[in-house]
Amino acid sequence: MTDPLQHAAGPAPHPGRRGRRAVDAGDLVERARRGEARAVARLISVVEDAGPAVREVAAALAPHGGRAQVVGLTGAPGVGKSTTTAALVRALRQAGRRVGVLAVDPSSPFSGGALLGDRVRMQQAAGDDGVYIRSMATRGHLGGLAVATPLALRVLDAAGCDVVLVETVGVGQSELDVASLADTTVVLLAPGMGDGIQAAKAGILEVADVLVVNKADREGADRTVRELRAMTLLGSGADRPGAWRPPVCRTVAVRETGSGVEAVLDAVAAHRDWLAASGEGHRRRTRRARREVEAVALDGLRRRMGEVRGSAALHALAERVVAGETDAYRAADELVARL
Amino acid sequence: MTDPLQHAAGPAPHPGRRGRRAVDAGDLVERARRGEARAVARLISVVEDAGPAVREVAAALAPHGGRAQVVGLTGAPGVGKSTTTAALVRALRQAGRRVGVLAVDPSSPFSGGALLGDRVRMQQAAGDDGVYIRSMATRGHLGGLAVATPLALRVLDAAGCDVVLVETVGVGQSELDVASLADTTVVLLAPGMGDGIQAAKAGILEVADVLVVNKADREGADRTVRELRAMTLLGSGADRPGAWRPPVCRTVAVRETGSGVEAVLDAVAAHRDWLAASGEGHRRRTRRARREVEAVALDGLRRRMGEVRGSAALHALAERVVAGETDAYRAADELVARL
Repeated sequence: MTDPLQHAAGPAPHPGRRGRRAVDAGDLVERARRGEARAVARLISVVEDAGPAVREVAAALAPHGGRAQVVGLTGAPGVGKSTTTAALVRALRQAGRRVGVLAVDPSSPFSGGALLGDRVRMQQAAGDDGVYIRSMATRGHLGGLAVATPLALRVLDAAGCDVVLVETVGVGQSELDVASLADTTVVLLAPGMGDGIQAAKAGILEVADVLVVNKADREGADRTVRELRAMTLLGSGADRPGAWRPPVCRTVAVRETGSGVEAVLDAVAAHRDWLAASGEGHRRRTRRARREVEAVALDGLRRRMGEVRGSAALHALAERVVAGETDAYRAADELVARL
Repeated sequence: MTDPLQHAAGPAPHPGRRGRRAVDAGDLVERARRGEARAVARLISVVEDAGPAVREVAAALAPHGGRAQVVGLTGAPGVGKSTTTAALVRALRQAGRRVGVLAVDPSSPFSGGALLGDRVRMQQAAGDDGVYIRSMATRGHLGGLAVATPLALRVLDAAGCDVVLVETVGVGQSELDVASLADTTVVLLAPGMGDGIQAAKAGILEVADVLVVNKADREGADRTVRELRAMTLLGSGADRPGAWRPPVCRTVAVRETGSGVEAVLDAVAAHRDWLAASGEGHRRRTRRARREVEAVALDGLRRRMGEVRGSAALHALAERVVAGETDAYRAADELVARL
């Protein structure tokens, strides 16, 4: 038995060298579609490296998408994102579904350790060949991650995953906003950590398709659930006919089996049906593609600037900014004029 | 007595409307230079809004920079960044220095609550007119924050701050990397949270100019300090003559006065002297200006894409990506061709 986690998890030892190896994108994609874990891992590595081969991979993946439901999981640190992810993976596997997990960390190497710990925990939970788990962090600029993440999702989609769970801390309007990556956004809260009002203030209710109060055996859980339910009723347009009203689930994901996890999966499945029936699914995918195209375009422009960076021209501009002879805006105009 | 914190802290209630008010950038900068807290706050708001007036502000600020030492503070959540910042502010004020504090949160609205709490705590600590405190978070994309943050630092510099403390979670190579914003980078650790080896793995030692083991009254502090000291000796080039070897300080910042904070300030001052004597200060400022110019240029290109975004062209491209007829790379080529 091959363990796909051994191939799919973690960065490869020699990213630079690996990037230079020849890539037969079409062959890799075909092998990934047949469920070869090695091919899936290799494709995601190519995507992360963002070398020239990534264009071929993107082209080879294009016809094979749109099958997986991308489920974003988000919530404040400590709320139990990783244990909930692990519990969802177990439940999905018991139901015979193929699952991908992508942990995206836009913040810092500080959390690298935590991610690693989570991954180990998830490996124990999974340990079968119907699961691909991968964590991605910034190698370089955030723009790179904004390009690589949607493409990594396409790899897992093409590999036949029914559900891809994306775990990220990003909420809001940034490029790595969970809602901009996912078909269905699951927001985790814990009693006492975020009251309903706090959640509303943080703009969480606006992006949540499913709300989960984890650690629901703790004091204050009833109140948090009640508040959140009341707020989803107040949400803009929640009373329109055919509108989606985010269900509020309760989980205790830390236990061996994870209580309440089935209800979360039911809610996620119901949301998938609603996405298809309402046309919102297509709208979201189109919006996502628009953002992806923009991110790729910006990344390309950044690379071209990077070529300018080596030149004396940008250095001279920077020297003038430091000397107070010009400002960054006027200097940027000169830089763009050179592109 | 006016309390500058009341003006400088927190976002204004009507960002949209505020953005449309006429701005006399030259006059505002002059007033900020005379220490008018209102003018400082207004300038930072203009910078955050990123409207057309920001160009005038940047131009008006250009001749008045280079005085403040920008000190970046970073560390994992829970390590005591905010209490340490507050203790440093108190100590700097006691020494009669003007201080600016910029809390940059690139992650999410989830931490909005925490930032607010910290700000309240810092207001109590400060409460005089020699301190400007401001927190900035993403309004929109991260690229916007990458542009606004260096410019907000320029505002505080022009306002006569001797030291500007920048608090951020960002480490690594991203646009909001603390080391790319600061003259001097202070990395906080706590016993048991990050051993020396963990810190080395995370790339922390490479960016740290000053290492602080906070919560040094806890068990394991001695060991952490010892490990870090040993590692700074192993660091690349640390034994070159004239090289800077990051000192390791111990603090207990949670106490009313904050023990060990003076030693941190001494280390920061020594680093400032070293930056000037070695020429590294100028090199860092030039590198920073280079990144800033690039960020402004990319932001401008993004805006031009935003204008394309409203058009049917990008929508049509996105539809074709969703349908699997093309991929994001080929679509991006078409988009860039239209710019």
